Amino acid sequence: MDTAAYITDVARHAKEASRIVGKAATATKNAWLLKSAEEIRASQEAILEANRLDIKMGREKGLSSAMLDRLALTDERIKSIVDALYDIAALPDPVGEISNLSTRPSGISVGRMRVPIGVIGIVYESRPNVTVDSAALCIKAGNAVVLRGGSEAFHTNRALAERLRKACQEVGIPPTSIGFVETTDREAVRILLTLDRYIDMVVPRGGKPLIELVAETAIMPVLKHYEGNCHVYVDRFADLDKALKICINAKIQRPGVCNAAETFLIHEDIADEFLPRLGHALIEKDVEIRGCPETRKRIPEAKEATEKDWDEEYLDLIIAIRVVPSFEDALDHITRHSSQHTEAIVTENHSLAMRFLKEVDSSSVMVNASTRFSDGGQYGLGAEIGISTDKLHARGPVGLEGLTTQKFVVFGNGQIRE
Amino acid sequence: MDTAAYITDVARHAKEASRIVGKAATATKNAWLLKSAEEIRASQEAILEANRLDIKMGREKGLSSAMLDRLALTDERIKSIVDALYDIAALPDPVGEISNLSTRPSGISVGRMRVPIGVIGIVYESRPNVTVDSAALCIKAGNAVVLRGGSEAFHTNRALAERLRKACQEVGIPPTSIGFVETTDREAVRILLTLDRYIDMVVPRGGKPLIELVAETAIMPVLKHYEGNCHVYVDRFADLDKALKICINAKIQRPGVCNAAETFLIHEDIADEFLPRLGHALIEKDVEIRGCPETRKRIPEAKEATEKDWDEEYLDLIIAIRVVPSFEDALDHITRHSSQHTEAIVTENHSLAMRFLKEVDSSSVMVNASTRFSDGGQYGLGAEIGISTDKLHARGPVGLEGLTTQKFVVFGNGQIRE
Repeated sequence: MDTAAYITDVARHAKEASRIVGKAATATKNAWLLKSAEEIRASQEAILEANRLDIKMGREKGLSSAMLDRLALTDERIKSIVDALYDIAALPDPVGEISNLSTRPSGISVGRMRVPIGVIGIVYESRPNVTVDSAALCIKAGNAVVLRGGSEAFHTNRALAERLRKACQEVGIPPTSIGFVETTDREAVRILLTLDRYIDMVVPRGGKPLIELVAETAIMPVLKHYEGNCHVYVDRFADLDKALKICINAKIQRPGVCNAAETFLIHEDIADEFLPRLGHALIEKDVEIRGCPETRKRIPEAKEATEKDWDEEYLDLIIAIRVVPSFEDALDHITRHSSQHTEAIVTENHSLAMRFLKEVDSSSVMVNASTRFSDGGQYGLGAEIGISTDKLHARGPVGLEGLTTQKFVVFGNGQIRE
Repeated sequence: MDTAAYITDVARHAKEASRIVGKAATATKNAWLLKSAEEIRASQEAILEANRLDIKMGREKGLSSAMLDRLALTDERIKSIVDALYDIAALPDPVGEISNLSTRPSGISVGRMRVPIGVIGIVYESRPNVTVDSAALCIKAGNAVVLRGGSEAFHTNRALAERLRKACQEVGIPPTSIGFVETTDREAVRILLTLDRYIDMVVPRGGKPLIELVAETAIMPVLKHYEGNCHVYVDRFADLDKALKICINAKIQRPGVCNAAETFLIHEDIADEFLPRLGHALIEKDVEIRGCPETRKRIPEAKEATEKDWDEEYLDLIIAIRVVPSFEDALDHITRHSSQHTEAIVTENHSLAMRFLKEVDSSSVMVNASTRFSDGGQYGLGAEIGISTDKLHARGPVGLEGLTTQKFVVFGNGQIRE
């Protein structure tokens, strides 16, 4: 069979299966999650064997050590894959919830019912845990899924997907609910992204080039997760002890992730007092500082920031710092340079805090808290499939709810429209 | 200036203005709606004059009488345009609402704030009221708007848009918030639909060919409103008096609109009793019936339905009727032929009613009510910008809420992530 016909078949079968997953009972979906965990634990040796094959081929292909590390499974990593399945089983099922039910003057009652989207396509790179946690979130939300992982993790992903499908059979969910694209043909992705008849939404999980490729190619909606150029603005009414703690935490607690801060904006009225303290604390933690001229006056160790620094997502122990003459200048800087992921203000002034919350157009906006909180787990959403930097459908951390949609339901008793 | 540069300018100015509209007070937005109403009433003669010019040019171009009718303004139609502005002023402002605020174990409080989308593009056909009600809904929801109407209504739309922009100046909203594309160059639409840097969402308002053209061309999200091939399923547990009232209302109360029924599915157990009554009532109302063989046995006047009839949106006094052997067959028929707009079941059986609500994948699903209720006004949403047949972002009737989005807001007191 040629690639196009094969991929179309996988997607069409997923669409058919989605009608059954969509009405599956919560207990059935949870049973599948627990069975999958069991199957993966029981097949741990076979999965590690498949992973060793991928690692061997990756070494021969000359993959970087960072890529090989992302690809590698260990007992501990398999344990965390299995734990994620238990966590997702423990989450409430969003499907079927009816909200905003109200009676209208005509006598009908109108509400909104939360329902699955249908089929979710996942296009991802080398981390094999994505195979399991994406499928788990999609099925729990009542969707079928079509998985297309990176070719370098092909054997590992296939071994994992096999266990998920075996668990399907055991609990009575069609195994075709978990479409796994069994070819490393690169053309497969392009074909997948044109099958809007069968695939309702695509989630790319990986670096910016992958996301851009998917966004440009796909004709169905794409849930995008672009970079996080996150800002902390320290206002002139800030409590400087809180500000110091928040800045340091936002930058260094885990610098390689999208909700880490990349630029601090400091109000000039507090720059003399705050910047030397901040500079000292950052340098102590080995953070490289790139500052505007006003920053460098107060932190002599700071390098000179260029225009490019304001747009950079370092994902590293580097921070850009700019002194701003006013609250409005901080907003302007953020409007111009932010990637609309997460921004925080540190201030004790209520009116400015509320203005910042309202006027900053980012997926998460915070007052007196570290940007590192921008996370599905921290927000109480449970596991997340990504952090959407799109404005429509889902914005910010996306958990089960973002994998569902709503429809109107109307309860009548014979009403007609006059 | 060339068309591309001109359109880009309009859109860029709208984007800049959107930051001001987005934070405008409710009172300012309402003042604009009332001023616009005043301006339109005061300029009624000039607007009618512009409209007469469009009508004259339309006659010369040989427009159909239906098109000329859609295009024509009268005193009464201007009154209903003005009334719509008052209605929108009376709606609650969705912007700034914070929902689901809860405190997390870390001590932060997390909620969602409803915020404007940014700039909405409206691409529409010949009905000039769309100029006013689209702009009114967009501005009330805190968005800027870029309007591109049909060339045959150009002078009328321009006259209306001028009044809206004049009202902007009077209340202190930038007139560039209402971008009006002052060219009839057809290339303008294509260019507009590529400006995703400035335009966040596009709403096509018009017939299917327009919607398809916009959906295919636009690189930003499109709120689509495809046809309504709506079904009423009369179950074997139906109260046949209710069923008759609902069927007749769904078909004939206003046959030319998208939430009118186009197919009835009748359970065979009640076909002998119900179909002759239904046939009689339909024929009395001059409805043409196209039936399956089982229908024609019970309604001899019915013509023979072909496969094509099950997919047809007649928008006319024509109905397709099929007898189905079971509830499951009704679901199957709907899955195969529905346009996922609105479907209703008539039944007194609770379990089947709830299964129908859950399993039918349409934007509105009803029990014992006429499909004609699928409407923003009837649902209590106020004025609507369309009825979305998309599954993501907004589904079903779209009012002010569908012209907004949500972001996460976090209230802390110095919390950092451990």
